[in-house]
Amino acid sequence: MRLIGREEIENIALGASFFGAGGGGNPYVGKMMAIAAVEKFGPVKLVSTDEIEEEDLFISVAGMGAPTVLAEKIPNGNEYRHAFEKISQYIGKQFTGVFPIEAGGVNSMIPLVVAAQLGIPLVDCDTMGRAFPELQMTTLHLGGINISPLVITDEKGNISVTETVTDKWAETILRAETTEMGGQAAVALYPCTGANLKQWGVHGIVSQCEVVGQMIEQASGSKEDPYEALLRETDGFHLFQGKIVDVIRTTKNGFNFGTIQIDGLDQNKGSRCEIDFQNENKIAKVDDRLSAVTPDLIILVDTETLVPVTTENLKYGKRVRVLATKANPLWRTKKGIETTGPRYFGYDMDFKPVEDLQKEEV
Amino acid sequence: MRLIGREEIENIALGASFFGAGGGGNPYVGKMMAIAAVEKFGPVKLVSTDEIEEEDLFISVAGMGAPTVLAEKIPNGNEYRHAFEKISQYIGKQFTGVFPIEAGGVNSMIPLVVAAQLGIPLVDCDTMGRAFPELQMTTLHLGGINISPLVITDEKGNISVTETVTDKWAETILRAETTEMGGQAAVALYPCTGANLKQWGVHGIVSQCEVVGQMIEQASGSKEDPYEALLRETDGFHLFQGKIVDVIRTTKNGFNFGTIQIDGLDQNKGSRCEIDFQNENKIAKVDDRLSAVTPDLIILVDTETLVPVTTENLKYGKRVRVLATKANPLWRTKKGIETTGPRYFGYDMDFKPVEDLQKEEV
Repeated sequence: MRLIGREEIENIALGASFFGAGGGGNPYVGKMMAIAAVEKFGPVKLVSTDEIEEEDLFISVAGMGAPTVLAEKIPNGNEYRHAFEKISQYIGKQFTGVFPIEAGGVNSMIPLVVAAQLGIPLVDCDTMGRAFPELQMTTLHLGGINISPLVITDEKGNISVTETVTDKWAETILRAETTEMGGQAAVALYPCTGANLKQWGVHGIVSQCEVVGQMIEQASGSKEDPYEALLRETDGFHLFQGKIVDVIRTTKNGFNFGTIQIDGLDQNKGSRCEIDFQNENKIAKVDDRLSAVTPDLIILVDTETLVPVTTENLKYGKRVRVLATKANPLWRTKKGIETTGPRYFGYDMDFKPVEDLQKEEV
Repeated sequence: MRLIGREEIENIALGASFFGAGGGGNPYVGKMMAIAAVEKFGPVKLVSTDEIEEEDLFISVAGMGAPTVLAEKIPNGNEYRHAFEKISQYIGKQFTGVFPIEAGGVNSMIPLVVAAQLGIPLVDCDTMGRAFPELQMTTLHLGGINISPLVITDEKGNISVTETVTDKWAETILRAETTEMGGQAAVALYPCTGANLKQWGVHGIVSQCEVVGQMIEQASGSKEDPYEALLRETDGFHLFQGKIVDVIRTTKNGFNFGTIQIDGLDQNKGSRCEIDFQNENKIAKVDDRLSAVTPDLIILVDTETLVPVTTENLKYGKRVRVLATKANPLWRTKKGIETTGPRYFGYDMDFKPVEDLQKEEV
């Protein structure tokens, strides 16, 4: 157990936007909410999955919808707690702590807000080890842990408790509600036991976000090559370095789709990297040769500062490095690939691990 | 108290399609479900609002969505009971009986199904005295009785309990869920007391549907002019008689919009009647002169059989009589007109009572 205060929050938010793999939203609003909460209620206890009891109950709280809306439609700060309290009342049991659904600028922060408000611990695990766009794209889902009952609420006070026959139905129904509620809503989902998190959570992700965030924060003052250190820490693969020359965007069903074109610089001069995104980066190709594919993480960082570049911050002329890291092993199982692999997102190709693709290249 | 069996159901369904004012759906599917339920579980007790206790709790169960979908997506028969049981469990109290939300081919029947299945009474009142397309268009809403908590469920078993800050928000959120659930869903809504129904219900509507249904059923063997008798029974005004020569339809947001053109016959020869509908008939004009307008009821019946013609059964060449009846006085209040008057439905005109419009014409 250790305490999470303002400084830790800054680093976690920055690191989470790295693991967001282009998605998960801009960390600014979430971070500001979390900092305000710990300054008002005191620091939050972060507990590892080894420290929680098997039979205790835990739940995730998150924002649903386009993170870009969040910046314009500021939550009143109570809707996440409202969602948490409603699910507890509905089930008739107390939850011991909360955990983030994903690593991402916004949803890594929201459980911290609730944990601070209620004085309960945050568990150091999530259910993706990265960001994904749909509610059923979780390692708990892979473990057969039911998403239901789950709660959705808005800043006005409308609230629903839903039980669905599949996790995908929860995604479908709550996505429609989110749209009606103005594009952003608060959800409480995946009520589960400590045993479930020990078996199916992505362990240590909050701490890993913090470490990575700190490395990025200190990159400019670092002696050794900070990018090399980042690759080593995340077991990552350098894919490309260059300048963004084109970004094509479309919005469909509340998701951001698009393609990024990057012209090579330095050792990549004369090459071109193309990245397809659907909220998160999904496919990276260098000179039409596949370099990495979902569920592996494809991450863009600013060439100089190493600050992660999320899809809403893509800009012509920006110099970036492209790297990839291995998805959690649960995502590389048959069910994992069915749930978040390239075919689910409409690409006619099989998943190939980034390490194999890199070997092929050599 | 009296018992409702197969014969009563036939008449109620037929009469309800009259008060549906063009909407409320084809009575066939609802009627078949209700008949199957009373044949299996025995007849249903119909109790008047005078016979219920002020402090007892009651709730409405209904189908939401396009009634046309119902014929293709047959309910499994348990989803309405499922909705009823969930709301009872959520509130932690027992409901004494059920009441129809509206008079219409489908929703006059569904509470009968649940009443039969659970052996509880049906209250002889509804919340519209006709059919309307949205959940907040009820006399309970006019009385400030909250629609929440309310339940929506589908035939697969997905289920939500929702509490909203306004009745209109319930309409918005559940409409989106209904669409995702395939265009038709079961809802339980307006939990209320006997006192609420005594004060704000449209009393005796089930019995009135039955009387009107019986009159229509026996129209062909009647000695006196059955149409005149129908007008007398319903305090109605004859507007027009003719042949449908055109029906223009559009579908928007799950609602059926359109215009009906009727060329006059007999005493209306040389005249034309135009009726605008949005699920229900909303405006009737004869030779461009306003004859009746929502919330008053505009009803088309087959010229010979007097069987009500709902908007989905409009056909070129069909001979019809057009009549209008006065909306329940609650609909003619300021809040009633704001909720269901012509301006709510996008028409730039004020409400005028049908009896005044008829006087003007003379």
